[in-house]
Amino acid sequence: MFTLLLNLIFSISLSAQEALPEKAPVPKDNPMTKEKVELGKQLYFDPRLSTDGTISCNSCHNVMAGGDDQRPLSAGVGGKLGGRSAPTVWNSAFLSVQFWDGRAKSLEEQAKGPLTNPVEMAMENHKVVISRIKQIPGYVEQFKNVFKTKNFNIDHVAKAIATYERTLITPNSKFDKYIKGNKKIFNAQEKRGFNTFKEVGCNSCHNGVNFAGPNLPEGTGFYMKFPTFADAKIEKQYNFQKDKGRFEVTKQDSDKYMFRVPTLRNIAVTAPYFHNGAVKTLDEAVRVMAKLQLNKELTKKQIEDIVVFLNTLTGEFPEQTMPRLPQTKNKSFF
Amino acid sequence: MFTLLLNLIFSISLSAQEALPEKAPVPKDNPMTKEKVELGKQLYFDPRLSTDGTISCNSCHNVMAGGDDQRPLSAGVGGKLGGRSAPTVWNSAFLSVQFWDGRAKSLEEQAKGPLTNPVEMAMENHKVVISRIKQIPGYVEQFKNVFKTKNFNIDHVAKAIATYERTLITPNSKFDKYIKGNKKIFNAQEKRGFNTFKEVGCNSCHNGVNFAGPNLPEGTGFYMKFPTFADAKIEKQYNFQKDKGRFEVTKQDSDKYMFRVPTLRNIAVTAPYFHNGAVKTLDEAVRVMAKLQLNKELTKKQIEDIVVFLNTLTGEFPEQTMPRLPQTKNKSFF
Repeated sequence: MFTLLLNLIFSISLSAQEALPEKAPVPKDNPMTKEKVELGKQLYFDPRLSTDGTISCNSCHNVMAGGDDQRPLSAGVGGKLGGRSAPTVWNSAFLSVQFWDGRAKSLEEQAKGPLTNPVEMAMENHKVVISRIKQIPGYVEQFKNVFKTKNFNIDHVAKAIATYERTLITPNSKFDKYIKGNKKIFNAQEKRGFNTFKEVGCNSCHNGVNFAGPNLPEGTGFYMKFPTFADAKIEKQYNFQKDKGRFEVTKQDSDKYMFRVPTLRNIAVTAPYFHNGAVKTLDEAVRVMAKLQLNKELTKKQIEDIVVFLNTLTGEFPEQTMPRLPQTKNKSFF
Repeated sequence: MFTLLLNLIFSISLSAQEALPEKAPVPKDNPMTKEKVELGKQLYFDPRLSTDGTISCNSCHNVMAGGDDQRPLSAGVGGKLGGRSAPTVWNSAFLSVQFWDGRAKSLEEQAKGPLTNPVEMAMENHKVVISRIKQIPGYVEQFKNVFKTKNFNIDHVAKAIATYERTLITPNSKFDKYIKGNKKIFNAQEKRGFNTFKEVGCNSCHNGVNFAGPNLPEGTGFYMKFPTFADAKIEKQYNFQKDKGRFEVTKQDSDKYMFRVPTLRNIAVTAPYFHNGAVKTLDEAVRVMAKLQLNKELTKKQIEDIVVFLNTLTGEFPEQTMPRLPQTKNKSFF
């Protein structure tokens, strides 16, 4: 028991700053194969999974950009607006729960949500998704090869998409090189920014491999109340509390304003910020966070230094080939 | 003069059936470079070129699919519908004019249209497009490298996009292998279909390297009246004549119902068919074409054979890497 406790403390303290692993954790019931990644990539990029053929997963989680859509709120079928800002898909495989409110315990569960969300891909239900995919012989064949079944269902679709998403990792950021031992790679301001980041207390939540909290088992979320120290002036400006976070799902008072701690990896290229995308710049995001979460007024210099440090968290986006979407021959899909 | 005439006749007769060249014609004032292709690819896939950041060139001309959006009419910003079905971008470099009505004399000219079309990308004007692109340092740097100017304008943007589009070629179709001499590659039905295609007269318009008419100089369109032999029953079903084609641009009576002859390359994977996308299947498209353009009622067998032949026009879609879209650092683009 004592050893276990020690191990736990040790692992939490270790989780304070870590390099991004090159491979994501893989659930036992969804092993990765090359063919499954390829199938998942096709599905991820296929707008036919939305009711009118205009929206794919990639529309809002654009892997060619920072993994999001660069907009405050996403636009789904017919330009309908979602309620929250699309989180980046890059490194999402290292998050222990998905969505801003953590309502999906895995990438597999997450992948099913937007398909039938009326303001996203707006499919009537998952059965319609499957009957659509079954119209496309190239998909039927791949599902048969990958999952050894002709009777695939939405769970197979989700497994394939999640498998592709597990390949979306941005290693070798300047920070990763630094933390692995190349201490010379940081310039003076980056070092100062890193120290300020820790001294101020940003790292009390933004730690672990993804700067999104300790490395917890899949399904166990790391949540914080946002704002912790509500500020009338900031609230008036950004309207954060309109969204009650996890409470909207659980309806439990203790979940009011609780949000999953978001990743800081690639934060410099995933503006705008916060669950409602209301903050346009990273320096303002840092100022607001310190005030609302730590009740601290940072100096301009502290903010500048932290922003410079946060820029070291931009990783390498690996080159990818485009998927080729299988077509229905000699007839229209719609 | 006589020699010129002979050459002309010879070249038109040669243009009857041709393999797709591996390289597209390149205008003198827009030479291809690797860097320009890469810049053009980024712009082609960048939804920030639309007013709300939701629509890129690729949204309607999806290179991962058959080069179109697989819908009857395209959906632009806010889900607004266009008036015509998106033509495929693949092999469009071999068309001598662009758009269904040929209103753009080049790929460069075409690329400028959708940007400011209110039902497509809906940008206010081209100056706004440029000021947007200039917000993104990664683009500014590339324009400087590629075009040797900091003061790039919409013509540079169009040149880059057109240069990328000139790489979108699908060589090595079964037909191409056949016409280059591998006569054994066609089975009996494919041969029969090819003969029927010619005997019926499809090839009187659908000839040349792109099966879209003779190889004409850039800017010179090959148009046909559609329908040539109007049919009340078909018209009632498909409403083709609602669209007066080239007349809508020129307002000249002689251009009423004139459309550019579309390519048949990859026709099996680019349903639905016709300028309004009203016909869902290739066999019905063949039946309708024979009736409306040649005043012929084809037998079921003739139609089947032609469809089988048309499937030999599906080429190889070369593997491509995804572009990486340059980001604005530490601040929101929108």
